[in-house]
Amino acid sequence: MLDEKENIQFQLTEHLIERVEHLIANERDKELQLFLDDYHYADIAEILDELNEDQALYIIKLLDSDTTADVLMELDEDIREKVLENLSAKEIAEEIEELDTDDAADMISELSEERQEEVISKIEDEEHKAEIEELLTYDENTAGGLMAKELVKVYETWTVAGCMRRIRGQAEDVTRVHSIYVVDREEKLIGRLSLKDLIVAKSDTKIAEISNSNVDYVNVQDDAEDVAKVMQKYDLEAIPVVDNQQTLLGRITIDDIVDVIKEEAEKDYQLAAGITQDVEADDSILELTKARLPWLFLGLVGGIGAFIIMDFFEEKLHGEAVILFLFTPLIAAMAGNVGVQSSAIIVQGLANDDVKGSINNRLIKEMLLATLNGVILSIVLFLFVYAWQFDVKLALAISVSLVAVVIIAGLVGTFIPLFLDRRDIDPAIATGPFITTSNDIFGIVIYLIISKFILGI
Amino acid sequence: MLDEKENIQFQLTEHLIERVEHLIANERDKELQLFLDDYHYADIAEILDELNEDQALYIIKLLDSDTTADVLMELDEDIREKVLENLSAKEIAEEIEELDTDDAADMISELSEERQEEVISKIEDEEHKAEIEELLTYDENTAGGLMAKELVKVYETWTVAGCMRRIRGQAEDVTRVHSIYVVDREEKLIGRLSLKDLIVAKSDTKIAEISNSNVDYVNVQDDAEDVAKVMQKYDLEAIPVVDNQQTLLGRITIDDIVDVIKEEAEKDYQLAAGITQDVEADDSILELTKARLPWLFLGLVGGIGAFIIMDFFEEKLHGEAVILFLFTPLIAAMAGNVGVQSSAIIVQGLANDDVKGSINNRLIKEMLLATLNGVILSIVLFLFVYAWQFDVKLALAISVSLVAVVIIAGLVGTFIPLFLDRRDIDPAIATGPFITTSNDIFGIVIYLIISKFILGI
Repeated sequence: MLDEKENIQFQLTEHLIERVEHLIANERDKELQLFLDDYHYADIAEILDELNEDQALYIIKLLDSDTTADVLMELDEDIREKVLENLSAKEIAEEIEELDTDDAADMISELSEERQEEVISKIEDEEHKAEIEELLTYDENTAGGLMAKELVKVYETWTVAGCMRRIRGQAEDVTRVHSIYVVDREEKLIGRLSLKDLIVAKSDTKIAEISNSNVDYVNVQDDAEDVAKVMQKYDLEAIPVVDNQQTLLGRITIDDIVDVIKEEAEKDYQLAAGITQDVEADDSILELTKARLPWLFLGLVGGIGAFIIMDFFEEKLHGEAVILFLFTPLIAAMAGNVGVQSSAIIVQGLANDDVKGSINNRLIKEMLLATLNGVILSIVLFLFVYAWQFDVKLALAISVSLVAVVIIAGLVGTFIPLFLDRRDIDPAIATGPFITTSNDIFGIVIYLIISKFILGI
Repeated sequence: MLDEKENIQFQLTEHLIERVEHLIANERDKELQLFLDDYHYADIAEILDELNEDQALYIIKLLDSDTTADVLMELDEDIREKVLENLSAKEIAEEIEELDTDDAADMISELSEERQEEVISKIEDEEHKAEIEELLTYDENTAGGLMAKELVKVYETWTVAGCMRRIRGQAEDVTRVHSIYVVDREEKLIGRLSLKDLIVAKSDTKIAEISNSNVDYVNVQDDAEDVAKVMQKYDLEAIPVVDNQQTLLGRITIDDIVDVIKEEAEKDYQLAAGITQDVEADDSILELTKARLPWLFLGLVGGIGAFIIMDFFEEKLHGEAVILFLFTPLIAAMAGNVGVQSSAIIVQGLANDDVKGSINNRLIKEMLLATLNGVILSIVLFLFVYAWQFDVKLALAISVSLVAVVIIAGLVGTFIPLFLDRRDIDPAIATGPFITTSNDIFGIVIYLIISKFILGI
């Protein structure tokens, strides 16, 4: 009988952790094994993430390597690193034997080069070893870096019955059969079949007759992000990978793509917030500082720039109109906000391939949009300044500046990511502190020039 | 033979669009059909997105409804709305008949209520109709709103041979067979099988013997985001959906989850940039203004607040130390940047369920981190101000304030999303303008108070 509410989300409670710690402390191995047996490997990994190094290692050594291999793959990278450091090359090789080739290659690539060779030399299954060595040659951000060697392959000349027999053999190594790939005598990909097609077909039918030649595929050198786009667009759950000669090399499954999509989204989000990619809330203070300080430093330099500009104007204004300086945070904030908004829309559009047409059209549209927003905001600001100071000229100077600043900020926010994208630089760096800081400075300069002109000082 | 480079990414060229427009203008239907036959429905949808309403409608009416149904699902929402407006209820019903129940329900739910009833009444397949009507009763952000009724189901009492026979029938309606779900006589979910298990088993084996009772599932009322988390964590490609009585209702596939993950990430990103969710670069200026103006207005109010505070201090300072005001944009920018950084890390951690432990520990960690960053930045600022003005007291006032401001901004950025999350409010609203604006004000107040104190004015 299935347990009703528990299934949706495994709950990692203090109580559960204490229980595991208690069992480890008392070396009650049998009980611990039985207890952990009930959990999915992804849950066990979550438990291990909460334990200390020795405790985690204790469990890894206690459980079967077919479970621990999967657990290891799911662990936080830092914890995995520590656990692997404490395992011998032989022990790591045993875990590797249990993993699919893509996961195996990922795990090995995290080791030092010296250790990599040692571990590989200890892998007993020669075919598995050769496949892993091949995968290690590909860049991790390409199709080759994502693919696994495990797949089900049939030759076009086979019959359905022969095919079923062979598949029974091949399929044992393959966790999930998505598609069966059809190749010719030279191992070139020429079509695909679904298991369903096979089951529905008569047993003496030739594979060539039922194979679907309309098969999507990617090249082993294609960019991981492009593979993600293709698989999403065509709703594919697996895609075969070929080399330049069309030889079938491996396949990529959707679960790996989900990770690519998530990482990409998280990277863009962090860049927009002024965090260099790849940190988590639980990383060390030093790592977080490394990711955050450079952007803050950029902000500091921008702030100093703003100060220098204002200082220059202050001398020119000879102490008149100090009130203008009291509005600079407002002007800077609005310039920053508008810039971040417009750049974010462009960055997201570029990531989704939604941004078509010319840069000019984009800029015209953003100008109209910024003008509309700027005028509405300026009317509010005009009324406030007038009500506060009863000075039409001052109110006019500040609100006219705001319109100009909002428009320029919108244009800068639109142009910079488009410009970077055309130059093949990741436009995501153009959101966040980069845009905010440059727009702060632009904004303050424009504001002070326009105000000085309108006020006639 | 497969075409080598073309496959990875379909290229939507001006030339291609012109060709299609030309064929439409000259009503060369046969040629147009043949031409579009080469393209995947997702590609045809991209072409249609670039055509005008009449042209798009022309193609929809020209092609077979089994293609156009899929094309319609892939269209931009605004274009689809226009196309559907120009189709009769009968024509829409024909498209609906070609779609899986989940897509069918999604498409119908976009119509006006009146139209919905009309279209449903025109669906001829009674079973399909009943299933769609059921799906329309679920909230779109729940498992029920994501699931499809199409699945392959077998009874525990069947044999493998009988099962294969029945599956041949059921599987025709199911695009992809991920798992075969095993139910008891009361239609309650009790296990699962893979096609592979079936193929490998002997034909007289009872299903109950080979069925795997360890089946993940979700409740029909579970939140879509939670379903996404479960499927990602356990690397599932499909998950069955049950009601409170454990009755099997439908299944959710990973491609729908990919959409949920992307939408969620995009929403958070847009919120961080000060854009109310769900706009695209190609939306109208009015829609974009609706999404952007409220946040800008918040920024304006914050800027006015900052002005009022500075004006208050200006009176107190009697014209002394005007130079302090020239540093307010710097202080505000740093407060904003630090706040956005710390809130982004927390928001992302919350989204990934990575943030464990107490709020206090988080705050202590952020305080240490902000202190470290703040001190480094302040040393730079101190040196600059001293070099510029040769005034130790001033340099000290400004740089000590910066440390304080950075720490407070970090704490605010950490605390607010955690606080919102505990109150079940989406913490993502706490990044971007919300944090920037409040930190601008906090920052300026703290800065002026500390400076006034250190300078003794």
